[in-house]
Parts: sequence; structure tokens; C-alpha cells
Amino acid sequence: MKILVLNCGSSSLKVGVFEIAEKAAEIFKATYEKFEAGSCSYKITKDGVAETGEAPFGDIAAVLTALPQIFDSHQVTQLEAVGHRIVHGGAKFQTAVVLDEAAITAIEALTPLAPLHNPANLLAVHIAKDVWPHLPQVAVFDTAFHATNPPRATTYAVPKAWRDAGLRRFGFHGTSHKYVAMRAAEEIGEPLRDLQIVSVHLGNGASVCAVNRGESIDTSMGMTPLEGLVMGTRSGDVDPGLFGFLLRHLGLSIIDVEQALYSESGLKGLTGSSDMRDVEDRAGKGDADAQLAIELFAYRARKYIGAYAAAMGGLDAVVFTGGIGENSPSMRRRICDGLEFMGLRLDHDRNQCVELANHAAPQIQAYGARVRVIVTETAEQLMIARETAAALAPKATVSEPIPVAVSARHVHLSRPAVEALFGAGYHLTPAIPLRQPGQWAASERVALEGPKGRLERVAILGPERPQTQIEISRTDGFALGIDAPVRDSGKLDGTPTIRLMGPAGNLDTDGLIVAARHIHTNPDEARRLGLADGVVVDVYIGDEERGLVFGKTLVRVGANSVTEMHIDTDEANAADIRVTGEGSLVPDLRAVAVTNRD
Amino acid sequence: MKILVLNCGSSSLKVGVFEIAEKAAEIFKATYEKFEAGSCSYKITKDGVAETGEAPFGDIAAVLTALPQIFDSHQVTQLEAVGHRIVHGGAKFQTAVVLDEAAITAIEALTPLAPLHNPANLLAVHIAKDVWPHLPQVAVFDTAFHATNPPRATTYAVPKAWRDAGLRRFGFHGTSHKYVAMRAAEEIGEPLRDLQIVSVHLGNGASVCAVNRGESIDTSMGMTPLEGLVMGTRSGDVDPGLFGFLLRHLGLSIIDVEQALYSESGLKGLTGSSDMRDVEDRAGKGDADAQLAIELFAYRARKYIGAYAAAMGGLDAVVFTGGIGENSPSMRRRICDGLEFMGLRLDHDRNQCVELANHAAPQIQAYGARVRVIVTETAEQLMIARETAAALAPKATVSEPIPVAVSARHVHLSRPAVEALFGAGYHLTPAIPLRQPGQWAASERVALEGPKGRLERVAILGPERPQTQIEISRTDGFALGIDAPVRDSGKLDGTPTIRLMGPAGNLDTDGLIVAARHIHTNPDEARRLGLADGVVVDVYIGDEERGLVFGKTLVRVGANSVTEMHIDTDEANAADIRVTGEGSLVPDLRAVAVTNRD
Repeated sequence: MKILVLNCGSSSLKVGVFEIAEKAAEIFKATYEKFEAGSCSYKITKDGVAETGEAPFGDIAAVLTALPQIFDSHQVTQLEAVGHRIVHGGAKFQTAVVLDEAAITAIEALTPLAPLHNPANLLAVHIAKDVWPHLPQVAVFDTAFHATNPPRATTYAVPKAWRDAGLRRFGFHGTSHKYVAMRAAEEIGEPLRDLQIVSVHLGNGASVCAVNRGESIDTSMGMTPLEGLVMGTRSGDVDPGLFGFLLRHLGLSIIDVEQALYSESGLKGLTGSSDMRDVEDRAGKGDADAQLAIELFAYRARKYIGAYAAAMGGLDAVVFTGGIGENSPSMRRRICDGLEFMGLRLDHDRNQCVELANHAAPQIQAYGARVRVIVTETAEQLMIARETAAALAPKATVSEPIPVAVSARHVHLSRPAVEALFGAGYHLTPAIPLRQPGQWAASERVALEGPKGRLERVAILGPERPQTQIEISRTDGFALGIDAPVRDSGKLDGTPTIRLMGPAGNLDTDGLIVAARHIHTNPDEARRLGLADGVVVDVYIGDEERGLVFGKTLVRVGANSVTEMHIDTDEANAADIRVTGEGSLVPDLRAVAVTNRD
Repeated sequence: MKILVLNCGSSSLKVGVFEIAEKAAEIFKATYEKFEAGSCSYKITKDGVAETGEAPFGDIAAVLTALPQIFDSHQVTQLEAVGHRIVHGGAKFQTAVVLDEAAITAIEALTPLAPLHNPANLLAVHIAKDVWPHLPQVAVFDTAFHATNPPRATTYAVPKAWRDAGLRRFGFHGTSHKYVAMRAAEEIGEPLRDLQIVSVHLGNGASVCAVNRGESIDTSMGMTPLEGLVMGTRSGDVDPGLFGFLLRHLGLSIIDVEQALYSESGLKGLTGSSDMRDVEDRAGKGDADAQLAIELFAYRARKYIGAYAAAMGGLDAVVFTGGIGENSPSMRRRICDGLEFMGLRLDHDRNQCVELANHAAPQIQAYGARVRVIVTETAEQLMIARETAAALAPKATVSEPIPVAVSARHVHLSRPAVEALFGAGYHLTPAIPLRQPGQWAASERVALEGPKGRLERVAILGPERPQTQIEISRTDGFALGIDAPVRDSGKLDGTPTIRLMGPAGNLDTDGLIVAARHIHTNPDEARRLGLADGVVVDVYIGDEERGLVFGKTLVRVGANSVTEMHIDTDEANAADIRVTGEGSLVPDLRAVAVTNRD
């Protein structure tokens, strides 16, 4: 599929044409910037040949309107779709969408959240609709990858009226962070779902993202792209008391301060220059302002890496991207030095000689270091093309019912755990068979104890397992006073410990989780349903009037498993299901539609 | 010395009387709060007996004026000094000071930085001056402990005009963080100077402090006490774009927003209640707002612990204090769970059964965990009494000259390093004897190489040492492109690596530091000068017109050492010294006055 990608900013336009097939290829690439009366500078790359110069376009609209002729003269033909970068998708857009009138209206309504960016992005949408009226247009949002951030990461501790008005954290650079995390997992050779990655995007805008087992769980930009790291001209984090101080001391208004935080702060505010290459040169010559700017820039990034490792509960890799992340070995080194206590150590030769052509993602950690350090170019345009193709993939129409079961809190015990709780040589008594063959609930029960309280008579599911695993709901976690992470069954590294209390004794053990929702099935059914072991699907639960999408549901294929989706009690409450439900699998939409049956 | 401590807030007054001797004792303690027309509630504790009730005081001024009678009726006599808590000392006050007219005027000038706190604090000063005109009054500042924060931690990346107007980070709760760090070091049984501690003060106000080898190097409150953690009624960190959003959506002014960020945000903004005990109770009963508030509170604290471990390059201990830090085992657990990857693991029984009477500081980490976790009551009032006594200690008047030498960049090599750089069996050639007996500069030189550049012909000092150590200035660090930490000689754990280049080969080794300034001396001289091995002194360098105080200079007593102070080239440039200088030791002021001699 041949896709035109338009990344239209307020002062520059990036154009890419991609062939998205088994392997994606960039066919054409162009940048237009430095617009003046009737002219601009441009760079076009095609077939590995770059051409630069002045073009007779006074503004971005003029370039957009002329694109068909430009494509003709470069033998770029047969476009099938247009993908647009849209900076702010708000809370509404959690994935790429086809740009119909309703979507455009909804994006326009988000302008107050990104007053500089969204209108520029939409300009390209409107012109492209005129220029290519028959091509489908797709919006790919900078914010969408962060839709998985939990409320603890998206909420500001401010009055309810403000939060109700829409004040929350969104995060940006999502397309970049997503690409970079995927590229790092590929380079490491492990599934993204098993990795804890901090993605560090250091360009003129800069942000850090905690990518925990494939999901963004936190990112340094917030409601606006002002929060977080020091950037080229943006301040990053400041004390909110700054506004009152500047009002009282310098008589500045909100608009004055906001404008300066966007355009006169960051490296520019500290040194007069927003270009890190300048700043690094001046620092090397002894310029104290430049030295401080570099220290501040690196220090803030290093603190975010530490914070996000703590947020995820571990760190497998740090990935650098963006102009500074890709090109400044000394900045990478300043950020990484001092993180050895977390198992992060650079190989200084590799750090020095990074080579990024052809989507390379070299590893630059020292031999034997526990944490990988990877550098890679970001590929936002390519990702936009890919997501555009995915959003336009043909939809099937069959739907297929699958049952849904609610898992109340329960434990799986190991042999030593059974003996610790019930006595040496004890064996659990199978009482009630479960739907999955060979599995049963025991007649015995245990109690769970945490710092806030106790849960009595918790079910034990058999048979015994190699590792003890305790599955509770988030609400149970508050009753116990423990923050249990959401995990796939069996992925227990670094999970909290809990006290189990049995008639013969107590046992303190790790393995406390909120089980991630999942679908059990067997190889035959999986084939028929178009599923495979380890894939992740979105699930729709509800009837036609009212429903809920449960994203990221893991499919587990077992030789003898019966097809059944498992959700926990909080999820069941949210979906208004009591014990079991039934639904329809809609593999094309990667969603399961479920209707209540009790 | 019997000291009255007054901690006067806007709505409550805390009074303490301490006997400061070898061991400090609290003789009398009182709190007055909930002021209404003509009455308030009070609690007085004396000789272990507590008395509570209503008192006939309509405001704090009335209590202060009545204190002499209150003391009389409780047999509290012979006060010798008054210590005041002053919240904001700005950039000017880096230590406790006697409150003369100049100091009071200077504190009044800081009111815009702490419009709620400083005027309340000063009210107590003014009344106390009337009530006890003959007692010396001392100000102890919440900000003073953070005076050691380096510019990378105190600077906001904002326009120069704003920074010139005084916009910078200060930090608060300094007296608490200082006490807590000292108490933790005592409990651990190691010198504070060897420890990397994160102090977590969780009360109605809340902040985190990175105490690196005895010095605060960063803290979560900034220019104002709004920044950082979620608090009882304060927001902590927010996106600065929030002001513009609230202006455009709700028509709010800076004053509106600021007031709400101070008083209607934090736990109160999220749940309606600012009391964590309430919030925890409601969360346990399933209140979703309360659950989110707890998650957000804990999550933010956990991220700061990770960030500050990264800032310090390591973590030996986390210390909890303040009402929530002392009394909520489940909050401590929520914050600590997930930090096991950094070596932090709680013992859940110890965490559950913390007992804090008599200044206890129990350790609650799991057996074998690398990071200690300690809980202790803060003792701000006691610290204010101690600092008041110290500020009033008699001053001596003798001054004694000591020489100052400038250390240019150099390396100390181990045996294996000599062989790696110069060949197997090679021995360095002593060329120039140094002032310290037995030490010399070799005729050989080495080059240093970092990601930004190379330093050629760097001196090698002999004899060989067990560990290779490379001492550079901060400016050299920018030439190399490496951020070297300031360290005492020989304290090389976790220091960056650097490439040394010799004629026979290159060597990548850790041990790169900016040497902390220090004074060498021998036991006889030390005795005469009133110094001891390991003590830290402040140093004044300059003449009568213009000078510089170098704080925290370490005294190293060696059997054969010659008395000499060593500073690096950056410090020498700052003090306008070329190669050597000479000065006067003024032990009473814990300062060395130095005049140039070349």
C-alpha cells in the first residue's frame, strides 16, 4: 500500500511516501521550511539522492497544493492513502482513525489543548482533502501511545472542577516512543511485552517515556508539551509558584509567562541558543552558562530515568533517540554516568562510534551490564504510514460468541507452600472442577494479610504449581494495603510479597498480582478464530447501547484449554457482569463483543 | 543552655523549651491551635504529663504575650535564648543567624518568596523581642540545609531576566531532612559523609531530599512549597501550561489558581479531605477517589526516590518521617514495593510494628537487603534549639596562617595501571618532590580521553597507590565531555570511567573525580589549630575587601603531612589565586582566611 505521510508543523512541512508491505520502504522524502515572502528552502530525497535549494512557496499551504506536480516530476505515482500527524488526540483518540467529518470536528474541538500544533496539523488535512478527494485520510496522534497511562500517571492533584474541565496529563512524542520501544525489543530479541524500557527522545522537543511490558505507563510531557525535560526553547518542569512570583515582581500575565515558557526558555533561556551543538561547543570553551545548561539538561534526563525505573519496578533498556540523543555521545554519557548502581554501564567506545544508517539500533552498554543502552533514529513518518495502513485494513464482518468468566480472588500454591500452610505431607482436596480441564477449586481456604487488613477464606485453585501465585483485584489491594501490579499469569519477577495464613502456619511469599485479563483457547479454536498464542486483542463487552472496550487482552493457547475469557471482579463490575457472560469474537476489529447472560 | 523554640505558623503555634547539653532534653512542649473569638485549643506536655483543653487566647499574639505567665505556672525558668523557625531564608541565609535589626530587615525582604509563612514567623520574633528583651534571638531557616544544592538542582530553565529577579529553587523542610539524615547515620553506625540517603518527609506538607554524603543536593519543593509531592492541600508538580488552560476555560487569574494550588488541591482536591487517615479509611471501603489519591501520593514519592538515587548515583538508605511517613505502614509499603531492583526490600513485620518513642529510628528493611529503610520522628524543634545554641557559641579571636596550594589536573596510578600504560615491569621516574613528604611528580605524562575531547600531558603523582585516581576540574570535565563527581580522595565507588593513554597502551579505568577541597595537616598541628581528622570546616579566601567562602572543607590528618590546603584550578580562579596562597585559620568561625601571595 502506497501511503503519503504529512507532518505539518507551524513553520515546516515534512512529506514522506512509503510503500507498506512485508517490509516498509520510503520512496520519497521532503522537508520544506524557512518560509519567507514567496520562497522557502527545501530538501528532497529520492532513490538515495538528495536535492536541496529554494522553492517558490511562500507558505505551507502553497507547498501542499503543489504536491501533485512535485510528485509528478519525481515519478511518485499511485498514492492510496494519506496519513497525518496530529499532535493532540485528547482523551478521545486512543488509536489512529479515519478522518471523516466527525473526527475532524472532534480534533478541532481539541485545539485549546494544543493551540499551536493542532491547527497546523489540520491545515494539511483540509488541503489534502481538496487535493486528493478520493484518497482516504487517517489521523495518527502523538498522544495515542500514552492512552495506556494509568490514572496515577495522568492525574494532577488539583480541584475536581479543573479535572472535570479536562485538565489531565496526556503526553506527546507517542509515535516516536512507540517506534523506538519496538525497535529496541527487536534489537534485543525479546518480546516487547517482557521488557521494561525507558525511551529518551532528545530533540528540540524532548521527552522520556516509561514503556512497561509494551505499554506506555508514564511520560514526562503532560497536559501540554511544556512539562518535563529541559528543551530547546521550552522550560520543562517548573514550580507552579513561578506565575505568582513573576506577576508580583515583573508584572507579567499568564499569557506573557506561557509564551516565554514555550519560546524563550530551555537551552535558549539559559544560554541564548536553542541548539545543543552550539551549547556544547561553547561549554567546551569554558562558557559557564552553556556548562550549566548541559548539566541541567543531562541531570533532569537522568532523574527521569531513575524515576521511571522506580515506576516500572525495573529496567531492561534505555533507548536514546532524537537529534541530541542520536548525535551527542557526551550527552548520552552524562545522562548514563552514575546509573551503574541500577546495572547501567556504557561501553565508551561503542557510545563514541554509533552508526545509525538503515534503521540500525546499536547496543552501547558495557559487556556484562544488566541494562541495555540502545541508540536509534526515530521513524515517526514510517510509523505514521504503518498505522495509516493498519487503520485502513479491510474489516471482516463475522462475529463469533465466546464465554466470559469472572475470576474472584484466589491463590495457586506450590508444594512447599501447601506444606507450610497445611502441614508436612498434606495434599489439597479437589472439591469443585473448573471449566479448564484438570483444574479445580480445593475445599481448603487460606487468609491473606497485608498492612491494612486481612482477606479471609480465599479460594485455592489446584493442581499445585511450581510457583505460588496470588491473584487479587485492585480493590482487594486497598483492603490489604498493597499495590499489586497487573501481570500475566506466571510473570512474577519483582512482585510484592504477601502473608498467607493456613491452619498449620503462615507463609510470606512473593507472587501477588492483579491478573491481566486473558482469553484461554486451544490450537483448533485459535486457528478458527484467527488468534495465536501470545497475541493481544481488544475486547468489547456490552450490548449495542452501552459497552466497554477492554484493551490488550492476552490470548493463551493451551493444548487442552477450553475457550474462555477471564476478567477480574473490578472489570466484571465495570462491565456489569456477575459470574459469567457470553459474547462474540470479532477478529477483524480485534475485539470481542460480549453480552450478559445472567 | 536553656532554649525556648518558637515555631509560629499562620494558624498554630508550637512552643518547646530545651536544655542543650551533652545530651539534649525537652523540658516543656506546647501547641496552640484552632483559634476562634477569644479562645483556642492547647496541649501542654511537661515531665511526661500531657494536659489539653481550651485556653482564653483569640490569636497567636495573645499566646506569645502570655508565655511568661504560662512558663511561671509550669516552673519553666531561666531561659537563655530564643530560637525561631523561619521558613524562607532565600539565597542569603545559608545557616542559622542571630536576629539583629539587619537580619530581621533581610528576612522581611524575603516575604514575597513565602507570603504566608515568613510574616507569621516574624510575628513571633517581634513579640519575643518585647517579651524577652534581654535574650538573644536566633533564626533557623527551613531553606538553609539546601544551600549546598548545586546550580543544576536550583536552576529553572527560564529566561535570564526571571532568574535575575530571584527565580530559583530553594527547598524547604531542611531542618527536618537534616535531623532525619543525621539520625539515620547514627542508627546505621556509619558517618553521614559516607552515606547516600533519601529523606522522605510525609506530613501535611511533604517533600523528599537527596542527602548525598551529608549534603542536600536536591529536594522536591522548589522556589515555593508548592512543587514536588502531592500534599494535604497542595498540588505538588503540575504542568505549567495549567495556568493558560484555566484562564481560557474557566477564566481564572494567577491569584485564583495559586490560591487553589495551595489550599484546595492535593489530597483535598482529589478526595475532599486533606487528612490521610480519612483518605485511607475511605479507600479501604472502596471509595475510588480515595484510592486514586493514595496511588498518586505513593507513586509520586516512589518516583522521587528513584530520581534521587539516580541523582546521587546510589542509595544506602531511605528514611521516612512526618505524620504519614511515621504512622502509615501501608503507605510506606506502597512507596517501597517495586524498588527491589535497586536493592530495597521491606521486612513487612518490622514495617507493621514501628515503635518511635524516645527518638527511636528502627530499621525496617528485609534481612540482607542492600538499602536500609528507616522510620523516625522528625525533631525540628530540637534541631532549632541545637542550631540556636551553636549560633550563640562563644567566638575566639585568634587567627593563624596556613598555606594554600592549587592542584592542577593529575593522576595517581596503581601498579597494574603503570604497566598497562608504560609496559610490564615499568617504574615511574620521580622528577619533582612535592610539599607533602615522600610524594613527587613523575617525569612521565599521560593523556586523558573522553567523548568530547582529550587532555594531553597530564601529570602523574607518585608513589603508586592501590587504586588509580584521576583528579580534574569541573571545566576539564566539559573539555572531556564527562560529568565527574566531587569526591574525597580515595572514595571512588561508582565514579565514571575514563581512558588513560600511555606510550605502551591505553587503559579504561574508573576513578575520575573532581577532588573535594581539603586541608592536610599532622597530629601536632591539628591539635594546635583545634582541628581533627575528618572534620569539615568553612574556608574564607580573600582579603578584607573581597573574598569567597569555601564551605565544607575536609581536614585530613596524616602522621607526616605538612599543613596545606588544596583547591582545584576552578576554585583558584574563583578566588584569584595562581599557584599558591597563604592564609589565616580562624577556628572559632570555622573558617580559614587566606590572602594571595603571588
